[in-house]
Amino acid sequence: MNPTHIARCAQIAMLLEVSATPKPGNVDRDHDFADLRYEHFLASAIGVKDVFERAAMSDNKVGSLIKDAVEESTKWSGGRNTHFGTFLLLVPLIVAAGKGDVYTANDIVHNTTAEDAVEFYKAFKCVDVYLGDIDDLSVKDATSIDEIRRRGLTLYDIMQISAERDGIAQEWVCDFSRTFAGARMLTKKAEDMSMNDAIVHTYLALLAERPDALVQKKFDLSVAEEVSREASAVLKEKNIDAIRRFDDKLVQKRINPGTTADIVAASLFVHLLEGDEIA
Amino acid sequence: MNPTHIARCAQIAMLLEVSATPKPGNVDRDHDFADLRYEHFLASAIGVKDVFERAAMSDNKVGSLIKDAVEESTKWSGGRNTHFGTFLLLVPLIVAAGKGDVYTANDIVHNTTAEDAVEFYKAFKCVDVYLGDIDDLSVKDATSIDEIRRRGLTLYDIMQISAERDGIAQEWVCDFSRTFAGARMLTKKAEDMSMNDAIVHTYLALLAERPDALVQKKFDLSVAEEVSREASAVLKEKNIDAIRRFDDKLVQKRINPGTTADIVAASLFVHLLEGDEIA
Repeated sequence: MNPTHIARCAQIAMLLEVSATPKPGNVDRDHDFADLRYEHFLASAIGVKDVFERAAMSDNKVGSLIKDAVEESTKWSGGRNTHFGTFLLLVPLIVAAGKGDVYTANDIVHNTTAEDAVEFYKAFKCVDVYLGDIDDLSVKDATSIDEIRRRGLTLYDIMQISAERDGIAQEWVCDFSRTFAGARMLTKKAEDMSMNDAIVHTYLALLAERPDALVQKKFDLSVAEEVSREASAVLKEKNIDAIRRFDDKLVQKRINPGTTADIVAASLFVHLLEGDEIA
Repeated sequence: MNPTHIARCAQIAMLLEVSATPKPGNVDRDHDFADLRYEHFLASAIGVKDVFERAAMSDNKVGSLIKDAVEESTKWSGGRNTHFGTFLLLVPLIVAAGKGDVYTANDIVHNTTAEDAVEFYKAFKCVDVYLGDIDDLSVKDATSIDEIRRRGLTLYDIMQISAERDGIAQEWVCDFSRTFAGARMLTKKAEDMSMNDAIVHTYLALLAERPDALVQKKFDLSVAEEVSREASAVLKEKNIDAIRRFDDKLVQKRINPGTTADIVAASLFVHLLEGDEIA
């Protein structure tokens, strides 16, 4: 599969994810946050094309690819953090796809180095990411980079340390299992419904299945669990108005299940790559 | 200005144009047509990156660039015609920008050749475009290409022939005057309102100013004039609900002022190129 095709599938995945509506709690084509608008997500998806293409051309430097994607995205979205978590998932998936099999992303992340970890830490200089510290290696402390080199920690090691409380890191250490499950859901749902609705339902199903890690970080586990229970209830209702009410409620409380949205973007990439009609 | 930057501005212009809502009568983020959905426009904008980048790299072959853009767009949007008119405007503007000054697009179109005309005619093989015949040179007749070569008609000549009834061709022969006027409007309006609203108001102002050529082709001049009068009235009301009612009415009657939307996309490109924050 050629690198341009792979990069475009990843960009379109980003556009479809942010466009799908209503996607309770998150920015979508129908609602913005105060300083983070739908348009910023569109511009970010355009900005990262060349980085994605390099990733698909067997550039193995996962850490610096993530940093470059964050840099380009930030530049094109006027300094906002739109897709940090999404890039953490998409980059290894794109590298794996470029080598011929997206399902080998697990090998890609296992083979990361300490230099990847160092470059990844540099990505935090570009944007304000909502993230707890990674063990004793604060992403805001410049000496962390020396410490990573001294200890020889790879980017995979960093993700292992973070996995307990970070849903994206969990994907790295659990073979992207939720991403691939999401892709299967999308493929199945898209047989009976529009792409927009397939994305919304997959998002709700993933959210129902596990408390969102970003919500847990910003609030606490009980809030995240309650959101998952509601997602599950709303899915059972099979009623668009119930989804909209759930959306309104989360937006009002500023509860944005961002980790789940990142996973959906990655799932969409895998789904599109497998040859479903793009749009 | 580097070719990647120029290409990205053009892609983001396409995304912002189709996203702006409510854009009476046309596909936007809030409504689709039966077989032409918002997502098809997103995918098309992603698909054309490399063609745009070539256009910005002093590739002067305007006709084949338009054909290539149509081909890529069609491939990525599942065979739909999403942006035919938009490409006719964007390609010469991008070529001019690549040479250092978007305002010299007039020179670019004047320097087109018969080969450009031939390649342009080939673009009609990719998609179903709503277009009357160009004089006696039917776009559906394979012998037209021989006739173009025999008469030595350039693409500019073809546009001159079409200008009487085609609003995009008019831009070619009138120095892209409405495109540049639209860019100035956008820049001014964006000072006081969101980018979405600036686009909607510019679209209505351009529509109020001149009957949409696509509406005139599909219906007749009196319908197109009535649409322009209503656009003017709606603008004066300064009321979002009035814009929405106008939108509902046009959608119901399947009146889509597509030429005006194409010009807005081109205006957005010029506006973004001049350094306004992207989103």
